[in-house]
Amino acid sequence: MAEVENQAWLEQVKQLRQLLTAAEPTAFRTTFLELHSWEQAQFFLGLEQAERLTLYTVLTASEVGNFFDDIDDDDQALPEFLAEMPSKFAAKMLTEMYTDNAVDILEHLDKGTINHLLAQMPQQSALDMRRLLHYEDETAGAIMTTEFIAIAADQTLAAAMVALRANAADAELIYYVYVLDQAQRLAGIISLRDLIVNDQQKMVQEIMNERVISVQVTDDQEEVAQTIRDYNFYAIPVTDDENRLLGIITVDDIIDVIDDEAASDYSGLAGVDVEDTSENPLKAAAKRLPWLVTLLFLGMSTASLINHYESLVSEASVLAVFISLITGTAGNAGTQSLAVAVRRLAFPDQARTFLSSLLAEMVTGVVTGLVTGVTITLVVGFWKHSFILGSVIGLAMCCAIIVANLAGSFIPGLMARLGFDPAVASGPFISTLSDLTSVLIYFSIAQYFVTSFVQH
Amino acid sequence: MAEVENQAWLEQVKQLRQLLTAAEPTAFRTTFLELHSWEQAQFFLGLEQAERLTLYTVLTASEVGNFFDDIDDDDQALPEFLAEMPSKFAAKMLTEMYTDNAVDILEHLDKGTINHLLAQMPQQSALDMRRLLHYEDETAGAIMTTEFIAIAADQTLAAAMVALRANAADAELIYYVYVLDQAQRLAGIISLRDLIVNDQQKMVQEIMNERVISVQVTDDQEEVAQTIRDYNFYAIPVTDDENRLLGIITVDDIIDVIDDEAASDYSGLAGVDVEDTSENPLKAAAKRLPWLVTLLFLGMSTASLINHYESLVSEASVLAVFISLITGTAGNAGTQSLAVAVRRLAFPDQARTFLSSLLAEMVTGVVTGLVTGVTITLVVGFWKHSFILGSVIGLAMCCAIIVANLAGSFIPGLMARLGFDPAVASGPFISTLSDLTSVLIYFSIAQYFVTSFVQH
Repeated sequence: MAEVENQAWLEQVKQLRQLLTAAEPTAFRTTFLELHSWEQAQFFLGLEQAERLTLYTVLTASEVGNFFDDIDDDDQALPEFLAEMPSKFAAKMLTEMYTDNAVDILEHLDKGTINHLLAQMPQQSALDMRRLLHYEDETAGAIMTTEFIAIAADQTLAAAMVALRANAADAELIYYVYVLDQAQRLAGIISLRDLIVNDQQKMVQEIMNERVISVQVTDDQEEVAQTIRDYNFYAIPVTDDENRLLGIITVDDIIDVIDDEAASDYSGLAGVDVEDTSENPLKAAAKRLPWLVTLLFLGMSTASLINHYESLVSEASVLAVFISLITGTAGNAGTQSLAVAVRRLAFPDQARTFLSSLLAEMVTGVVTGLVTGVTITLVVGFWKHSFILGSVIGLAMCCAIIVANLAGSFIPGLMARLGFDPAVASGPFISTLSDLTSVLIYFSIAQYFVTSFVQH
Repeated sequence: MAEVENQAWLEQVKQLRQLLTAAEPTAFRTTFLELHSWEQAQFFLGLEQAERLTLYTVLTASEVGNFFDDIDDDDQALPEFLAEMPSKFAAKMLTEMYTDNAVDILEHLDKGTINHLLAQMPQQSALDMRRLLHYEDETAGAIMTTEFIAIAADQTLAAAMVALRANAADAELIYYVYVLDQAQRLAGIISLRDLIVNDQQKMVQEIMNERVISVQVTDDQEEVAQTIRDYNFYAIPVTDDENRLLGIITVDDIIDVIDDEAASDYSGLAGVDVEDTSENPLKAAAKRLPWLVTLLFLGMSTASLINHYESLVSEASVLAVFISLITGTAGNAGTQSLAVAVRRLAFPDQARTFLSSLLAEMVTGVVTGLVTGVTITLVVGFWKHSFILGSVIGLAMCCAIIVANLAGSFIPGLMARLGFDPAVASGPFISTLSDLTSVLIYFSIAQYFVTSFVQH
């Protein structure tokens, strides 16, 4: 089914490109403008520069702005698109876009270009965009839009509907109508549903909900995402510290936040940026190598620790057999507890403090360590006909697992307390660190017992 | 700030619990019903059973249903809540909830209880729920709701508004109004915005959008999530194969799908279920142990491979020094390429086939392998004053990285083709597998060159 649709879409793209290059603007416009704006954006992103230049002459700035709203703001080609447009056209297009999306694009440009574009916009738009550009990255202010519908409390619903009708075309979402007092402070909220189903002669203040749940303009975007997720809102108002309404954040922007957050946690666990999956293999190698080489040098410390015990290994070469088993198992246990700790930091549990989580993780570590340790003691004991050797391996593994569990659960919390992203304490880092401690534990224990299991 | 809010919230919870146990229903109702339904749910989840039993007598079934809509459908206590309610009350409450949420709860119960509850509901509700219960898990049908607003095409907007007003209270989202033809097929869609801003004497068919983007009832929920994400919809209609409208899926349900999906990918990479972060440490250990012990036995194959080379190690104990370095680095490289492959499967790139991705990953593997290999050759060469030993380590590491990269990128794709969740080919599994191949590569190469770097 999906392939059939895909075939039809490729056919349509081909036909549209032909109409564009054949300079048949009317036919092109008819077909193109029937597409959904996201599809228009997909079509646009597949064009060559020459075709794009033609497109800018065939469509109005407002029509181009309409689908630019649907281009992912992480798209690296955005500055190129803006640069190839006549600057008046670009300014007009940005004005026609939703303010938050226009600002997302401006953030990719250099200061000179931004000022040049803002200078060609109507004063109010330029002012709005300047204000939004000002907010720090990843805060509520940086992702909010200023296109909301606000009304006064002392009017009838019928009058409010007239105001709503007049402003509906420009607002990003009309599902919630915000009620302001004389000082522009947020006094209440009405859903469009309430506005419609109630008697039109009632006053706004009679039916508005005064318990408005809002976020502060300086709040972190992840907090905003959590609130919208919890309450199942379609949008949330953003206020300053005097409760004046500055903007709204809609759920589609929150989905982007959730996606980015998930991708960055996942990247942290793997030690690679997974966001850019379509880049060329050489660039991918260049991005992964710094991590790999850093970990390689960290791994060198484990190697030199083993080197320190080389005489022990040459005396009892059987010890070499279990190095990778112990480091590997402890690394797996550490990664498990790291993942749980990172997740717990993202979705905090009111009932648990940092210390009680650490304690719980320690108990988990002791239990998993004991079970795994006893298992391997038996396996090695029967295999090598030496339960002393088995006990050495088992004891080492048990201790290594407990230490790895503690490290995996402690380091993300420490990172968060120090103000870093906990996902930075990533999986490969924890595994490599746990290699070092596991080897140290292993050989310390083995050295103590070596005379008992080596036959001279 | 958050702590101050939290303090106020705990205070309010305390006060509400006192009102509840002091049997002051009126005062309790006034305060409780002012809370947002999500907050009501949070309060409810913190109660003891005796308090909950009182609550069911103080609130109506409809009021309880209102906040049950906001309880996470993964909550394991749901069957207990249903069981402790009078069954008539439970049936009434489920009827008052949005159908999709009610069905999510029913899915936790056994067949007998479900039938008992459905028998006490109005016929239409029971029929709707039976139908939804029928759809396979994780499909569009399983997450859709049947509370949407549908109108006929041949009426004026004014008449449509009257119909909308009459049905608005029951619909889950009134932002989109769906236009059906005589055979109940989906003929068009109107946003509430268009309904409001246009001249009320126009006909519905004049302004409706006939290019409706919908999903099939059997579509996978992840496909639905992708469509809603791409198009920035607040809801999407769900149809059967004859284009009859069966339900809608709203964006809040999609956020849950995205969260679950991200958590399951993350869990797969770490080899642990991170969804349940607040469970007790013994349960956590019980959940992690199967994975750890399985990997332990897989790791035993690596150990027995090293055992096979024990005479080589006793001849050249320096080889033991680099085992964990080579297995660790190859494991890191494999995890990186696994994460990219899983991500690429979740967000497919039209321009790349499975084979071309594999080829690209191979190039990346060769480049990272060469750079890392040359680095370690130099480091070991200078450290151990033997560039032959250095080259052996470097060559082994280079080959091990290339193989790990290929495995990390090939296995998820293979899993997906075989119909399994690609995230099942999880991080610890790939690392443990790559340990085995790395050790094999390492000792094969070392054995070949051993006479060159061991001084007899």
